[in-house]
Amino acid sequence: MSTPRRVGRRPGSADTRGEILAAARRIFSEKGFDKATIRGIAREAGVDPALVHHYFDTKEGIFVAALQLPVDPAKVLPLILEGPRDEIGERLVRFLLTMTAEPQAREPIIALIRSAMTNEQIVSMIREFLTMAVLNRVVEALGISPVRMQVAFAQMFGVILMRYVVQLEPLASAEIEELVKILSPTIQRYLGED
Amino acid sequence: MSTPRRVGRRPGSADTRGEILAAARRIFSEKGFDKATIRGIAREAGVDPALVHHYFDTKEGIFVAALQLPVDPAKVLPLILEGPRDEIGERLVRFLLTMTAEPQAREPIIALIRSAMTNEQIVSMIREFLTMAVLNRVVEALGISPVRMQVAFAQMFGVILMRYVVQLEPLASAEIEELVKILSPTIQRYLGED
Repeated sequence: MSTPRRVGRRPGSADTRGEILAAARRIFSEKGFDKATIRGIAREAGVDPALVHHYFDTKEGIFVAALQLPVDPAKVLPLILEGPRDEIGERLVRFLLTMTAEPQAREPIIALIRSAMTNEQIVSMIREFLTMAVLNRVVEALGISPVRMQVAFAQMFGVILMRYVVQLEPLASAEIEELVKILSPTIQRYLGED
Repeated sequence: MSTPRRVGRRPGSADTRGEILAAARRIFSEKGFDKATIRGIAREAGVDPALVHHYFDTKEGIFVAALQLPVDPAKVLPLILEGPRDEIGERLVRFLLTMTAEPQAREPIIALIRSAMTNEQIVSMIREFLTMAVLNRVVEALGISPVRMQVAFAQMFGVILMRYVVQLEPLASAEIEELVKILSPTIQRYLGED
């Protein structure tokens, strides 16, 4: 699986960055998100771990770049979690619907969902990333039960899938603000104070 | 695509039934649910339309049998729709979670979802069946908006996908009654009286 290590490559070239991402995709898919390490990805790419850190900062940062995810949860979640707790449902719903309304943001996510549906390695990689980098963070920040968080996620995931993959009408053409009105009380009930 | 018509076959053999179903799968996948007809399926199978009616009663009945769906919406929906309106959320949630808890019932549905995710013809066939045979019926019976019905469907679809395909824990192992408690108020809000 691992390619022979090449030496003497100029660090910091566009090529190096691309090779780190290709190595990361192989490692994440083989080992999952949890067991993958920056050191292992650097070894697979034949570069120094410090260079991987330099480009991508964290393992999550590499994952986001390798899978071309439109947002880094570590950067976006704090913005959603801060602000009044009694409006968190509305903030989260509006953010997710606005983000996925952009084809460039949505397409890598849809492509990933499609591969996950038919590939056990990919589904397990995504499950680990989703749990550690997204869901558990919200669970800890808000002090809610993991099942409630997962049910909230399932609601938003289902809506986005029906809107953009199944293309159920009138849901697919509904205005964001109409859906915010329908969905916010649901997400608020799951994520609000008990 | 169509096989040469054989004549003189003994009607009512197990083989005839199987050939009607195979013909139905081809026709539904080519034409979708809406444009498929019992006459067209009979022609594709080389049998008399009356025989198709005799075996499967309706176009929906053929669809359910051809795709090995665990339940016929025409038979199940009346049971869910009758009974107190202020408990419809709970009835629907408990029915869907109990039905999908059975591997024999769940597996054909999951297989269909997997194929739909990567095949535009299958997704469009399912979208038509889902809209006409399931969602629009509930919309008409309850007098609610189609978007609310689709958002309710998205919630339950998301939960079943997270439970059985993504296998998110603790959602995947949660007891049905715990999920009924969390989900019923959501579905009740979508499907209850305005």
